[in-house]
Amino acid sequence: MTVKIAVHPTGHTTPPAKFSHGVRKGNILQVAGQVGFLPTTAGQPPAVAGPTLREQTLQTLANVKAVLEAGGAGWEDVVMLRVYLTDTAHFAELNTIYDDYFATLQGPPAARTTVYVGLPEGLLVEIDALAVLG
Amino acid sequence: MTVKIAVHPTGHTTPPAKFSHGVRKGNILQVAGQVGFLPTTAGQPPAVAGPTLREQTLQTLANVKAVLEAGGAGWEDVVMLRVYLTDTAHFAELNTIYDDYFATLQGPPAARTTVYVGLPEGLLVEIDALAVLG
Amino acid sequence: MTVKIAVHPTGHTTPPAKFSHGVRKGNILQVAGQVGFLPTTAGQPPAVAGPTLREQTLQTLANVKAVLEAGGAGWEDVVMLRVYLTDTAHFAELNTIYDDYFATLQGPPAARTTVYVGLPEGLLVEIDALAVLG
Repeated sequence: MTVKIAVHPTGHTTPPAKFSHGVRKGNILQVAGQVGFLPTTAGQPPAVAGPTLREQTLQTLANVKAVLEAGGAGWEDVVMLRVYLTDTAHFAELNTIYDDYFATLQGPPAARTTVYVGLPEGLLVEIDALAVLG
Repeated sequence: MTVKIAVHPTGHTTPPAKFSHGVRKGNILQVAGQVGFLPTTAGQPPAVAGPTLREQTLQTLANVKAVLEAGGAGWEDVVMLRVYLTDTAHFAELNTIYDDYFATLQGPPAARTTVYVGLPEGLLVEIDALAVLG
Repeated sequence: MTVKIAVHPTGHTTPPAKFSHGVRKGNILQVAGQVGFLPTTAGQPPAVAGPTLREQTLQTLANVKAVLEAGGAGWEDVVMLRVYLTDTAHFAELNTIYDDYFATLQGPPAARTTVYVGLPEGLLVEIDALAVLG
């Protein structure tokens, strides 16, 4: 029987409902949709890293990475990143930030799908990830 | 060679195109996007459980569960739920319904991504799921 | 240690950022979001197959298939297709095109989720795929 393990990095916000920031089962690690929330302080509500796409994207990627690492994985294990933006005008800037962030990535980059959706007010980007370990 | 099996719970609507409500291959069970359609009666068109978010979400979750169970899985095997809403104003209510529904869940909850998209008229929520068995 | 392999079919566009059109790790093959870009000519920018949903959907499916095949898979290995449309009015036509395309598919069809999002100007459809091999 494969064990299912919830992954919750230290300092991550408490999910607003009964879901896990990450789940590992067998060799699959699924990272829930992450946004640009800063590490939390006990008793304080979640705070966004800033109003800009750059600030939010970098914090979102840091949050995805934190879940990956808490689940025993890293970027090199990720096969898919789903990027949700709110504005097609952000595509070029997102790609620049993304390329800078992954400039030192070892091995093949993950696949990616980018679509434009609605997000809660103030949020410009959400990213989730699927990793295969082992 | 891993066998690929289509999963179709009794009473589920006929998909409107050549896709399966669920597919199992190896230890992966993928549930297609489910909406709030009631169990069908032969010869009748699909009918939505009701106009409210609560009615549709509960029926949608019941439909996801039916596919999981027809595929030999259950909520405890699900690693990811993707929730598609049409209105950011529904987030808080969705979370309340979600938490009530999963109050008795054994083990770690699945990861989740929630985004706001367009759906066919009258539909307020769609949910799909990825499960890892074994 | 499972090797992670990037999949890039001959003639496919260069991704606009540091991501792979496909990634295989273990028995999982993930295909990135494909759109209706024609095979490229060196030095030329990507060109869309045409302005219609039919042209773009058929080219998008051809592009998904090219990634699958370059990764050692085929439609029979696909467990999930995610279809992103921009207009709910396109659903019926998409289904007709989809059913024609998969008319000769051997074995159970993949699961599918269809949602309506924003895409870059001129694009009507995007599709990604998850395949399980072996």
